[in-house]
Amino acid sequence: MPNGFSFTSVTNGLPDEESVTAPLLHLRRSASNTTSQIAIVGSNPCPIESLDYEIIENDVFKQDWRSRSTFEILQFLSLKWILCFVIGIVVSLVGFFNNLAIENIAGEKFVITSNMMLANRYLAAFLIFAAANLVLTLFACLITTLIAPEAAGSGIPEVKAYLNGVDAPAIFSFRTLLIKIVGSIAAVSSSLNVGKAGPMVHTGACIAGLASQGGSKKYGLKWRLLRFFNNDRDRRDLVTCGSAAGIAAAFRAPVGGVLFALEEMASWWRSSLLWRAFFTTAVVAVLLRGLTDTCLSGKCGLFGTGGLIMFDVTSVDVTYHLKDVPPVLLLGVIGGIAGSFYNFLLGKVHRLYNLINEKGIAYTIVLACTVSILTSCLLFGLPWFASCRPCPADTSEPCPTIGRSGNYKKFQCHPGHYNDLASLFFNTNDDAIKNLFSKDTDNEFQPTSVLMFFITCFFLSIFSYGIVAPVGIFIPVIVTGASFGRLVGLLIGSNSNLNHGLFAVLGAASLLGGSMRMTVSLCVILLELTNNLLLLPLIMLVLLVSKTVADAFNNNIYDQIMTLKGFPYLETHVEPYMRQLTVGDVVSGPLHVFNGIERVANIVHVLRTTGHNGFPVVNEPPILYGLILRSHLITLLKKKNFYVTPTLTYVDAVEQYSSSDFAKQGYGNAEKIEDMEFTEEEMEMYIDLHPFTNASPYTVVETMSLAKALTLFRGIGLRHLLVVPKTSGRLPVVGILTRHDFMPEHILGLHPMLVRSKWKRLRFRFSHWNRIFS
Amino acid sequence: MPNGFSFTSVTNGLPDEESVTAPLLHLRRSASNTTSQIAIVGSNPCPIESLDYEIIENDVFKQDWRSRSTFEILQFLSLKWILCFVIGIVVSLVGFFNNLAIENIAGEKFVITSNMMLANRYLAAFLIFAAANLVLTLFACLITTLIAPEAAGSGIPEVKAYLNGVDAPAIFSFRTLLIKIVGSIAAVSSSLNVGKAGPMVHTGACIAGLASQGGSKKYGLKWRLLRFFNNDRDRRDLVTCGSAAGIAAAFRAPVGGVLFALEEMASWWRSSLLWRAFFTTAVVAVLLRGLTDTCLSGKCGLFGTGGLIMFDVTSVDVTYHLKDVPPVLLLGVIGGIAGSFYNFLLGKVHRLYNLINEKGIAYTIVLACTVSILTSCLLFGLPWFASCRPCPADTSEPCPTIGRSGNYKKFQCHPGHYNDLASLFFNTNDDAIKNLFSKDTDNEFQPTSVLMFFITCFFLSIFSYGIVAPVGIFIPVIVTGASFGRLVGLLIGSNSNLNHGLFAVLGAASLLGGSMRMTVSLCVILLELTNNLLLLPLIMLVLLVSKTVADAFNNNIYDQIMTLKGFPYLETHVEPYMRQLTVGDVVSGPLHVFNGIERVANIVHVLRTTGHNGFPVVNEPPILYGLILRSHLITLLKKKNFYVTPTLTYVDAVEQYSSSDFAKQGYGNAEKIEDMEFTEEEMEMYIDLHPFTNASPYTVVETMSLAKALTLFRGIGLRHLLVVPKTSGRLPVVGILTRHDFMPEHILGLHPMLVRSKWKRLRFRFSHWNRIFS
Repeated sequence: MPNGFSFTSVTNGLPDEESVTAPLLHLRRSASNTTSQIAIVGSNPCPIESLDYEIIENDVFKQDWRSRSTFEILQFLSLKWILCFVIGIVVSLVGFFNNLAIENIAGEKFVITSNMMLANRYLAAFLIFAAANLVLTLFACLITTLIAPEAAGSGIPEVKAYLNGVDAPAIFSFRTLLIKIVGSIAAVSSSLNVGKAGPMVHTGACIAGLASQGGSKKYGLKWRLLRFFNNDRDRRDLVTCGSAAGIAAAFRAPVGGVLFALEEMASWWRSSLLWRAFFTTAVVAVLLRGLTDTCLSGKCGLFGTGGLIMFDVTSVDVTYHLKDVPPVLLLGVIGGIAGSFYNFLLGKVHRLYNLINEKGIAYTIVLACTVSILTSCLLFGLPWFASCRPCPADTSEPCPTIGRSGNYKKFQCHPGHYNDLASLFFNTNDDAIKNLFSKDTDNEFQPTSVLMFFITCFFLSIFSYGIVAPVGIFIPVIVTGASFGRLVGLLIGSNSNLNHGLFAVLGAASLLGGSMRMTVSLCVILLELTNNLLLLPLIMLVLLVSKTVADAFNNNIYDQIMTLKGFPYLETHVEPYMRQLTVGDVVSGPLHVFNGIERVANIVHVLRTTGHNGFPVVNEPPILYGLILRSHLITLLKKKNFYVTPTLTYVDAVEQYSSSDFAKQGYGNAEKIEDMEFTEEEMEMYIDLHPFTNASPYTVVETMSLAKALTLFRGIGLRHLLVVPKTSGRLPVVGILTRHDFMPEHILGLHPMLVRSKWKRLRFRFSHWNRIFS
Repeated sequence: MPNGFSFTSVTNGLPDEESVTAPLLHLRRSASNTTSQIAIVGSNPCPIESLDYEIIENDVFKQDWRSRSTFEILQFLSLKWILCFVIGIVVSLVGFFNNLAIENIAGEKFVITSNMMLANRYLAAFLIFAAANLVLTLFACLITTLIAPEAAGSGIPEVKAYLNGVDAPAIFSFRTLLIKIVGSIAAVSSSLNVGKAGPMVHTGACIAGLASQGGSKKYGLKWRLLRFFNNDRDRRDLVTCGSAAGIAAAFRAPVGGVLFALEEMASWWRSSLLWRAFFTTAVVAVLLRGLTDTCLSGKCGLFGTGGLIMFDVTSVDVTYHLKDVPPVLLLGVIGGIAGSFYNFLLGKVHRLYNLINEKGIAYTIVLACTVSILTSCLLFGLPWFASCRPCPADTSEPCPTIGRSGNYKKFQCHPGHYNDLASLFFNTNDDAIKNLFSKDTDNEFQPTSVLMFFITCFFLSIFSYGIVAPVGIFIPVIVTGASFGRLVGLLIGSNSNLNHGLFAVLGAASLLGGSMRMTVSLCVILLELTNNLLLLPLIMLVLLVSKTVADAFNNNIYDQIMTLKGFPYLETHVEPYMRQLTVGDVVSGPLHVFNGIERVANIVHVLRTTGHNGFPVVNEPPILYGLILRSHLITLLKKKNFYVTPTLTYVDAVEQYSSSDFAKQGYGNAEKIEDMEFTEEEMEMYIDLHPFTNASPYTVVETMSLAKALTLFRGIGLRHLLVVPKTSGRLPVVGILTRHDFMPEHILGLHPMLVRSKWKRLRFRFSHWNRIFS
């Protein structure tokens, strides 16, 4: 039987171009289900895998499912809830610890420098400030580069890509988690203009990823009970909950966290997942509240006394009328333009930094140090340009604030005076935001100071993001946006009834909308931060306007970073030209097909010579039996249950294998075909692939439009989609579609005439600026 | 060619059982893609259609798409946004008008009766009160029964089913909209314990549905420009936005509205839809705020002076600690049990009412009148059992309240005293909720009064729902839950720090969670109602507990009503037994297949003798060409472009037809095959079906498990799913799956042994109670 038909090269042991294209068979070929090679910042190019959310139906899995007892099903369900609970607990503990550490480290630094300045030792203060920042930055950069380069950056793009089906290596390893937490603390404490929200999302996702694996095999922390979760679907669900918990912990915004996961992160969503994510963030909210309460009595060092971290901006007063709408719309438009410009610049700088970082570790470190020293100089230097202002008489706070928190920093000023720019610069980002958001401070800041702060923040955050350390951009964008809003408020002045704190909130919304392009989730996060629901209509308005304006120029920032990193992210929306192409127009390259009962030599040869992850299995008379995965083939080869003659082995297979043999391996644990040895004798033996083949893969006909196939591929979350011929008398499979076949670059590469067609997306282009900057 | 192969009965003109089951062909048959007959309350059984969200790819549609200019695409996009804007405007105007009308009608009624009671004319007051209620109820019932029976009930189940793909007749007609608005005003004003939130959602969806149709053809209000939206996908998107706007207008909760549409209503969701819905609710929020502001000066009659409608419960004070968690958990558990019991009872009563209503219009009216009189008696009678209490000295409100709004109703009491039960009963639901939610009123209500109110509300709302009028259950559940929470608060008394207003909010959350089973959306709606974000962790906790408890007993209330109405709703979750069955196990019944070029007589015969909505088109040699829809066939037959000999007509077809010829027809406008006449000559002619056949339908192999097929069917939103054979040498299509094939009743009917298997869902059963009640 296995040698009975000769229409594939593979079965003849000669997988070369010639025999595959035998004209008799009109064989379409697919090169695109190969493991693609992409570059990760700061590391060597390494393979990226895509995930499979399809229910794989082969005999072994089916048997395993049938044999599950009601007890095991109940155990599975309750374990999933318990895991969510544990994820919630751990994420909130980590989030709390993060904040505690940052508060104390950064706080201590500011206290020491402020005290030296009180004693007029300005140079020493600067040197200590700069040295502390440099050491912290260097530490964050070194551990990231040397131990876990995957922990660099925000982490949100990686998690988003993972939830879309792109499994970048090691993003959820224990190593990455540890470096992400420690590195983020160091980086944020070092006064770099970077955020901790992004890293917190990655931390949450990482915790969830590790929990679903049952711990880390490498470190001997593996819990057998959690074997049920060693599949892509359950893991994805838990990672979604984890990322929701991350935002919930970063902003103390449980509903915002769920919505963030839903709107920005997740590519597949079910109602039950909504509930699970909500449960996780509820745990985070309750526990965080409890932990913060215990710190109120001052037991946590510098934490909690001033509330440096976690904004409690309950103080914005809201009274607005119809005549306040035009300034708000203006804010939205400018924020949209500024946001898309921000994304554009960040993309350029990130690309440049990647080039530098790739040159070697020395370059990476020099870059980080340069950014740190520049930041220290700006933070310490710029406030000297601001004039000292006398303290207002009617303030409830002490003025000037000696120590760290508060709206009135003394800096170099005489007693009874304060430096408004220092109040913004010489502070953590969280404190700066709180100062900007607070009400009844309309006269506190001078326009020049706020302008200086805005410009500095805008560029500093762009130039800080690309360094190799766990740094986010969410909070820097909030700071920048808040100062932009304040500035607009100051310029409009008495022409509006809105107070400047409210302008700052709206400014933050507009820049966030222009840069992140979320709507509902940002709206809820801002509401939960400011704790004032009456702001809702204005925030909605600003977000809608700024997102609309910014969308006319470019993509959201996380999508841009994903493109830079080379993640094959599958968009939901269908590009118009995809309706012009059929599936047959994009599948290409040699297709490798196995027989139902196949020679070991053939399998080994094909696995060694191609990087494909899925292979059609075809029976005689030429009909499609199903699809078998590379990983399953490797498991089969490892077990070496071969037969001398072609034999059907259904009963044996079901007895000898269980679904856990085929469970997803953690990164780096996967067996490689190159490491396996076979004797001459073994190579001539046979394996019956039937019991291990997914006998009901999803198929599409070759004349289906690419748009329609994408709807299926994206809607179900597939990794392989078999293309079958329209006409008969040919091989029963034409090719395999993978996510790479849907990538615009791939399609436009195959069909270059589409590039300039009217079917491309309607969008303004920065082509002019591109030429200047690149 | 058309007579060249003989494997279907249809092509031979003899579509009887015998020839179809020709053993040679192993033909599997599908009876289930018939138009099912279901009963709608208060109307005759009428056909239900299902919707198609699949991209239909036939030559005519493709040509039409290719010929669209960039201008038309831009026009389409901007029109969709403009429609959302218009929907937002209209929904908020209707919502405002609704509230204004109810306020004034109900308010006037209460003012008149109160004044009579002040003059000690108690009997006259009762008679006027009861008569007014009766007239209003009768009016609502009569217009609903006579003009638009589709407007009866909440409307949420209908809209939810529509968004799932079930197109119940006339639910989005202009008639329905009108009756829904007017009837809802009358019913709520008549002091029935019914809500206006559900009808508001239906109203919003209805407005969106009409807008997407370009108006109502029947009333000559058709706008040609909106022809683009005459398809199921765009219409569904707009209806989703409309239902979000409905909730936003009912509760002034824009974010809650979006989440409600996402969590409860929509079956398909995209990120871009989130944004669109958010835009619509933002419009509602801004406009409603503006409209309410204009009423502040008292220009709107009784509206706005007391704020009878739209809760502004900003007054709940929140301080809580860990020791308050146990009572909150208790509230959640009891609320869950009570909620599931509520659903159970409502289902029973609704079934009983349906039986009564089906007997004729007289029965319907008598039933409504009985409920109205009973309600009047209870509302007027029960407060007499409550003892009068002296007015508290330190209240900020006037006590007793003379007029309508406020916490202290005088009723029969002496001056300086108030009747606490009358303050709840002798009020609109909105006012009762506000009284229960308000803080600093811990001593205002007596436990016996609250208990009486709770029990009465619980049962009254159950017995009021089933009458034939536009009535909702959302607000009655809130009232009942709030009184339940108050009661628990009173019983716990000084053992808890939480004030009783807070207990009322949490009680409302627990009963809502137990009955509606939503989480995030309810949480946000309650937060937006109470305007206090600090409540968040407690509300989350209560909702999670009560939903979990209630889910162990039965389904959510809207799903129950959908089951009662016979809507074939496709669940997201996969029942475990579906993994045990293959697709081949459920397709059954005769399959009708057309040739690519088919005789008119055959088409007419098949259309006349079956109710199927989709037919496979097969070419010779037996290969599947695609799927053609009944509605498209009817359009072809109507045009009568027949050919004497079998001819391929690609060019002609593309020239003669445009996609608008095949646009979806509004309800009742669809041509029927029974009304068409053909001459003997025409019957012998041919049509080339190729250009009109969807040439790339989704297919699954017959060995695929039902669970996996459901994932596809539900994930993409299909109406027909072709099943192809695994082995060759047979007809290239085995059957057609429609949504009916996935219904548990259908599957369990075919495979009765599954009923008692371990693969059924794990859930407690009310089988004992069922026997008592039915």
